[in-house]
Amino acid sequence: MRAESGSEPHYVDERSGATYPIDDPRWCGDDGAPLTVSALPGITREQVDTGARSLWRYRAALPVRIDAPVSLGEGCTPLVEKSWGEDRILFKLEWFSPTGSFKDRGTSVMISLLAQRGVREVIEDSSGNGGASVSAYCAAAGIRARILTPATTSPAKVLQSRAYGAEVQLVPGDRGATAAEALRQSAHTYYASHNWHPFFLQGTKTLAYELWEDLSFTAPDAVVTVAGAGSTVLGCDLGFSELLTAGQIARRPRLLVAQPAHCAPLHAAFRAGTETPVPSLHAPTIAEGTAIREPVRFPEVLRAIRRSDGDMAAIPEDAIATAVRRLAAIGLYAEPTSATAAAAIEVFRARGAIRPGETTVVLLTGSGLKATPTMTELFAPEGDER
Amino acid sequence: MRAESGSEPHYVDERSGATYPIDDPRWCGDDGAPLTVSALPGITREQVDTGARSLWRYRAALPVRIDAPVSLGEGCTPLVEKSWGEDRILFKLEWFSPTGSFKDRGTSVMISLLAQRGVREVIEDSSGNGGASVSAYCAAAGIRARILTPATTSPAKVLQSRAYGAEVQLVPGDRGATAAEALRQSAHTYYASHNWHPFFLQGTKTLAYELWEDLSFTAPDAVVTVAGAGSTVLGCDLGFSELLTAGQIARRPRLLVAQPAHCAPLHAAFRAGTETPVPSLHAPTIAEGTAIREPVRFPEVLRAIRRSDGDMAAIPEDAIATAVRRLAAIGLYAEPTSATAAAAIEVFRARGAIRPGETTVVLLTGSGLKATPTMTELFAPEGDER
Repeated sequence: MRAESGSEPHYVDERSGATYPIDDPRWCGDDGAPLTVSALPGITREQVDTGARSLWRYRAALPVRIDAPVSLGEGCTPLVEKSWGEDRILFKLEWFSPTGSFKDRGTSVMISLLAQRGVREVIEDSSGNGGASVSAYCAAAGIRARILTPATTSPAKVLQSRAYGAEVQLVPGDRGATAAEALRQSAHTYYASHNWHPFFLQGTKTLAYELWEDLSFTAPDAVVTVAGAGSTVLGCDLGFSELLTAGQIARRPRLLVAQPAHCAPLHAAFRAGTETPVPSLHAPTIAEGTAIREPVRFPEVLRAIRRSDGDMAAIPEDAIATAVRRLAAIGLYAEPTSATAAAAIEVFRARGAIRPGETTVVLLTGSGLKATPTMTELFAPEGDER
Repeated sequence: MRAESGSEPHYVDERSGATYPIDDPRWCGDDGAPLTVSALPGITREQVDTGARSLWRYRAALPVRIDAPVSLGEGCTPLVEKSWGEDRILFKLEWFSPTGSFKDRGTSVMISLLAQRGVREVIEDSSGNGGASVSAYCAAAGIRARILTPATTSPAKVLQSRAYGAEVQLVPGDRGATAAEALRQSAHTYYASHNWHPFFLQGTKTLAYELWEDLSFTAPDAVVTVAGAGSTVLGCDLGFSELLTAGQIARRPRLLVAQPAHCAPLHAAFRAGTETPVPSLHAPTIAEGTAIREPVRFPEVLRAIRRSDGDMAAIPEDAIATAVRRLAAIGLYAEPTSATAAAAIEVFRARGAIRPGETTVVLLTGSGLKATPTMTELFAPEGDER
């Protein structure tokens, strides 16, 4: 569903076609479906604010004018070229970010909007990076944050959120129970959810604009990323779509998307040729950030991959562990979740989805410093007496 | 001791006046004193390679041409303005770096030189960030690294070095014993020491060039930093000195330098008006990265502070802890070592060393993600049953 050319930006429920004013303080449709912002015209290179060393250099691409961005230096991350087997790969190091995870792009834009709208208190549900990111930007904005997290979450994982001053509420049951409790509480407290809020994706789309600028205002041929909820997939789809609309790039990069085989619901549906969940394995994975059974924007993620002529891969645990070690061995200390994308390079190469001589970007979304217990297991010296 | 104008860059032992060719594979003088590079002319804004998103945009300022930089995206860190009491402060967020610490600036340049010279194996001694940084760049360069660390160092602190593939050698005794063992081993293995190698400071000096560019090619009025060995002090002194020589800035920023009161040997000598150590307290501090009893470049650090019309402060433990919490409460998750600089703002403000209306930059050198055990103690919820 595309908005009429020339119309003002508004929210769209792409499933029902319903539209809502963008000034509504809503984060979902009346029937509880996720929303996007109506199609935007994109920006040209002349509209990049080159004086800003953050994603706010692309603020002209946002649907709403933000007068006072809540910024902690997010964006403008390095793009580093490395050998990877026979290939030369460009690794986009998204852990160069305020809280150590790519989520800060989405959070900065989402919280900036909410601060501008006068929101004073929010809730978010997360078992890790999303909660830390929302907590950081709420601290910067002077907004009270409550982070809902499964009661089983280790204290170390919520330390960062607590440090930023967020109230952490432990919810009995699994990750789904936490999300359900957040939905319940959203009746009386604003739900600043990185999975739900349309402006989170508006922030994430700056990843596409930034790659375009990194590559001298061209698009890469392919972008490899890992999907849990799929926000990097959707962000890239949004940003590159706008750049196409604006006539700034010639074609959409292929979105090549990995999931851990232990939790690959999107991959299962992709392979089955559907847009709805099919039965698939759900087992613990070291790629914790992707252990999401029911992504909120399930069909939208699949549509984005297909429209880009992309592909998906399911990566076994041992291949993820190998990729973490292989990245560290060339100087890149990535958490297992993001290393899943690096593990997928060979799969996609073998299938011809990554091609020699083309420009391939692999997104590394989070720092290994955020996953110390798992990294400790992966790098324990042989015969260690721990 | 300044080199003759127009002479080729060479190494100088500023204590004895001895000089050595810069192509020597040495890291100290014949009598074991630390070396610097002879005074360089600096660069102009036209010489900044604006296409490089790393400190290598200032490569024209280096004394030796480096053909193939070993780069992992270091430098180009954010400069974020925040309210701090009555003041507006610019925080330079150096934890946006490959290993999470500012040390990557120095390491990138040092290891690039060593790789170019054909060095295949190095040693370094460190109990933390320095070792992780050298390990990362050695991994990227294909150089074998051995990190010497006190046997008492917690396994979590050496995890990152191990992950990058470095051999970690535990040395009985204190930090001094480890340094002594490294010196002993340097007879047969190249000593790539962040405290000793003159090119480490050549990398650190890019901090000054970057602040100059961040501030539209002007110098700040004051830079506040924490000193252990003092490499940020010496790096700023070097970079700003070169910018003065090149006529790019009008005056040297005042270097305002904090140490934890529990380990403040530089501060004690500064107050005593000497350049040599005087008796001072040595007790455990949460600012672990600064717990250095005998900085290698002791007189040089003091001279740099004095020549800038700078000042020093000794910060009590509780004030460091308060600064960590206060930074986190505005969205900045800094490790206690770097928060010591923030804690010093009020001291310097009260003394008139930080003045209203001037441009003050505070360096935050490392991420809180690097100090999880200490951060856990600082942010433990009240009544927590841990």
